[in-house]
Amino acid sequence: MWLHASCLLEFDIPVDTPFLLMLRPRSGNQQWVGREQYVLTPSVSAVEFTDPFGNLCQRLVAPAGEFSIKTSFDIQVADVSDSAPGAYFIPVEQLPDETLPFLLPSRYCESDRFSQMASSLVEGVAPGYDQCAKIVNYIRETITYAPGEGQEIISACEVNEKTQAVCRDMAHLGIACCRALSIPARMVVGYLETLEPMDLHAWFEAYVGGRWYVFDPTQDNLQGGRVAIAYGRDAADVAIYTQFGTPVDLQQMQVSIEQIPAPVY
Amino acid sequence: MWLHASCLLEFDIPVDTPFLLMLRPRSGNQQWVGREQYVLTPSVSAVEFTDPFGNLCQRLVAPAGEFSIKTSFDIQVADVSDSAPGAYFIPVEQLPDETLPFLLPSRYCESDRFSQMASSLVEGVAPGYDQCAKIVNYIRETITYAPGEGQEIISACEVNEKTQAVCRDMAHLGIACCRALSIPARMVVGYLETLEPMDLHAWFEAYVGGRWYVFDPTQDNLQGGRVAIAYGRDAADVAIYTQFGTPVDLQQMQVSIEQIPAPVY
Amino acid sequence: MWLHASCLLEFDIPVDTPFLLMLRPRSGNQQWVGREQYVLTPSVSAVEFTDPFGNLCQRLVAPAGEFSIKTSFDIQVADVSDSAPGAYFIPVEQLPDETLPFLLPSRYCESDRFSQMASSLVEGVAPGYDQCAKIVNYIRETITYAPGEGQEIISACEVNEKTQAVCRDMAHLGIACCRALSIPARMVVGYLETLEPMDLHAWFEAYVGGRWYVFDPTQDNLQGGRVAIAYGRDAADVAIYTQFGTPVDLQQMQVSIEQIPAPVY
Amino acid sequence: MWLHASCLLEFDIPVDTPFLLMLRPRSGNQQWVGREQYVLTPSVSAVEFTDPFGNLCQRLVAPAGEFSIKTSFDIQVADVSDSAPGAYFIPVEQLPDETLPFLLPSRYCESDRFSQMASSLVEGVAPGYDQCAKIVNYIRETITYAPGEGQEIISACEVNEKTQAVCRDMAHLGIACCRALSIPARMVVGYLETLEPMDLHAWFEAYVGGRWYVFDPTQDNLQGGRVAIAYGRDAADVAIYTQFGTPVDLQQMQVSIEQIPAPVY
Repeated sequence: MWLHASCLLEFDIPVDTPFLLMLRPRSGNQQWVGREQYVLTPSVSAVEFTDPFGNLCQRLVAPAGEFSIKTSFDIQVADVSDSAPGAYFIPVEQLPDETLPFLLPSRYCESDRFSQMASSLVEGVAPGYDQCAKIVNYIRETITYAPGEGQEIISACEVNEKTQAVCRDMAHLGIACCRALSIPARMVVGYLETLEPMDLHAWFEAYVGGRWYVFDPTQDNLQGGRVAIAYGRDAADVAIYTQFGTPVDLQQMQVSIEQIPAPVY
Repeated sequence: MWLHASCLLEFDIPVDTPFLLMLRPRSGNQQWVGREQYVLTPSVSAVEFTDPFGNLCQRLVAPAGEFSIKTSFDIQVADVSDSAPGAYFIPVEQLPDETLPFLLPSRYCESDRFSQMASSLVEGVAPGYDQCAKIVNYIRETITYAPGEGQEIISACEVNEKTQAVCRDMAHLGIACCRALSIPARMVVGYLETLEPMDLHAWFEAYVGGRWYVFDPTQDNLQGGRVAIAYGRDAADVAIYTQFGTPVDLQQMQVSIEQIPAPVY
Repeated sequence: MWLHASCLLEFDIPVDTPFLLMLRPRSGNQQWVGREQYVLTPSVSAVEFTDPFGNLCQRLVAPAGEFSIKTSFDIQVADVSDSAPGAYFIPVEQLPDETLPFLLPSRYCESDRFSQMASSLVEGVAPGYDQCAKIVNYIRETITYAPGEGQEIISACEVNEKTQAVCRDMAHLGIACCRALSIPARMVVGYLETLEPMDLHAWFEAYVGGRWYVFDPTQDNLQGGRVAIAYGRDAADVAIYTQFGTPVDLQQMQVSIEQIPAPVY
Repeated sequence: MWLHASCLLEFDIPVDTPFLLMLRPRSGNQQWVGREQYVLTPSVSAVEFTDPFGNLCQRLVAPAGEFSIKTSFDIQVADVSDSAPGAYFIPVEQLPDETLPFLLPSRYCESDRFSQMASSLVEGVAPGYDQCAKIVNYIRETITYAPGEGQEIISACEVNEKTQAVCRDMAHLGIACCRALSIPARMVVGYLETLEPMDLHAWFEAYVGGRWYVFDPTQDNLQGGRVAIAYGRDAADVAIYTQFGTPVDLQQMQVSIEQIPAPVY
């Protein structure tokens, strides 16, 4: 399907402030960017680099005063995210090198402290995809998805004590449990067409059966309409914006996404 | 300055044919992509990856029949390319690691066979930027820029026997001479706003005085309005399209570029 | 100075177990490996790859039973680690791209929760090297270095509640505070010639004044004789061994290091 | 099998000269370095980095006068190099991204000029491994392996006009033909235990059937005992030493390799 998506960030900046941004989707295996805009108001110079996870990152200094960033794009994505019940567990010694960093604990996914919980959760479940699915079901059943809550980012250990959480939190818990079972898992930030209420979204992917599969504890089914903006170990790697120095005020954030016909430019 | 540029490639494809494309400019140190479109007709799935030089490359299989690729973008670039007469030569042992591959001979820049010529060309010239400038002047004076000629790509040794050449050839000769003097040099493919007649363009950059500088043997001055699409060792690395298998017929190629006001989307 | 160092790890392995190892030092800017050995007993096949931080990592499956790894090497390193009181703070927008991941919070360095503490610690101190030195002094004064304690890895927040800690803990706290001040900081695991009692060691580096500098909260002065084995965000990235699956028993670990004359092989 | 190998290079250096070296083997998929030495006489400081092909490269400035480099190592390698008659051709669109640079023409492998020759050579042969084998047979039959000749490196086009050649030349011709058939091919420099007379050796690898396979036009069979030192597009990428500036005099080069029992250090 083709989607048109946009994200508007409006800041009030007290003093000139360096930003690191991840707002430009890349054409990847399951998505093709047909058109894209990236507008800084006022216009400031910015540079772009590719981070260790392959994300396109923008660097700029936001000038004091009102500052806005608007990105929008037309993108073709899968109608349905692939699922693969029964996909096998890949022994660590056979994992591709580039998946190994996603086995290690990270800021918000203390997988080193989830061995016991993860093991008992998946008792009797076939290693691999089905274990991930079991973990996701558990999260969905025990934690209520409460979008809009939770400005401060909390870690999987902290999430595990709560009964409601945002998408990011639920992804962190899922990632921590998968890694504790030696299944590489990574965070994805992006858009989901059917999300209610509309916002940016976070989910995770696990590497089983020889490829990455989407898992989303906030949703009952694996509908498609997903746009990935950034991949990383957890929210620390994939913040759509990271600012340094004196805190700035995000006054408004507007996210939209809708299906469109295949564009003819 | 802000530029709007576009490139249209129309092919007649005899059988399904894999392509490797470099047509998506990246926001870099001297350019910021404000808006961008990439249209494949008919629409086919494509994936994108970053090559070892940092270029965004697209992979797809062009279906038999008529197939067109149209890219266009609004981009902010420097009004004038930086120049730095007198910028010093950097001894090899102090060069950053990532510049070293640009010292080695490559397919179309047989720098291993230009030591003598390059040395005598720059006799008495201060090492560094001024040597590059001397080489460029020599090329400009001895070879007539003859845009539109030369479908087959020829190498610096072959260029050196000719009296007229295309931009790509002249860049190859410049690169070979710089490398023969232990100055890292790399090929750039892109757009030049003032080019006559309009086409895609090629020039080169040399690493002196601690950074890369633009050199263009086809132009009398270093006017800006340059958009870099791809960087590499030579034309082999930065072909805007590489096709594999049965040759395809490029029926039409249209390139345009023009100044625009700073866009308000 | 030239050093000879060795590390012996003896395991009792209950079932065949995949390992990820970082035990091979690389010749780098301040160290040159003259001779090196890496012995697996019993001999098993192993492969090596370079991780995103540039470390040489070995992968193997340790067979059930007694399994030992012995590495040793002759290496030339600096007599004294460089220090640079007064070295300036580099504004985030001017930092090299590759230092940026070391600004983000990580598993054991929750820099996102140290803004207030770090700011008050360095009040009145010139931004840059001197801030790092102040942080290190604070850690040295408030936490007693207690080598040998602390098998479980704890995070900077947890360290901050304690009065004694191991080298790794003290480095984590230093890193978290530096990052909270927008100074890139990274973990180093390696050897220190004068360490008492002898063991593997951990310290950190901070990026100020245009390069990385060594900081070591466990030591009163910046003596050299340091061998870096691995660099990373924190202990999660630089474990000398990571094992997956059923826990193995490390029965013995012997570390030695001593000065030697410049070797003539 | 376990091998002990060594390489001694003795230079007479007229003025301080920067060198780029590739003399340190890495533990890889088919080889494990058990012990290794790298001796510079006189001792000079050197740094090491990983090049875009994953090779460990050393940089140093050789001081005027006599200068020698001696590397030696114990290494475990395969007894027989894998072969796979019938292994299938991988369509370009399904090749891993990292193999794509090995499809392009390079300094000494002008694959762009071998389409016709390569196609007629393999007429009627099943695409993939068997095409590579056919090419290798053709080279072996038409060009006599004449070790020790050919100080100047020549390119595949030049090799193709000759009746005798060195290992490097024969590899270049094989690579050029494979790439012309859209089969990724790369140069390998290293040691071969059974080589007569003993010297460093060069062969190539082609990517078919989902992995890289060894091909060696100089040998009648695929005996093992191969140690890879460096991989690249061609000889330009994998020179064991590249020197810059005033030519130096390589006075002596001694290479040895022999089987040893599995070492117990």
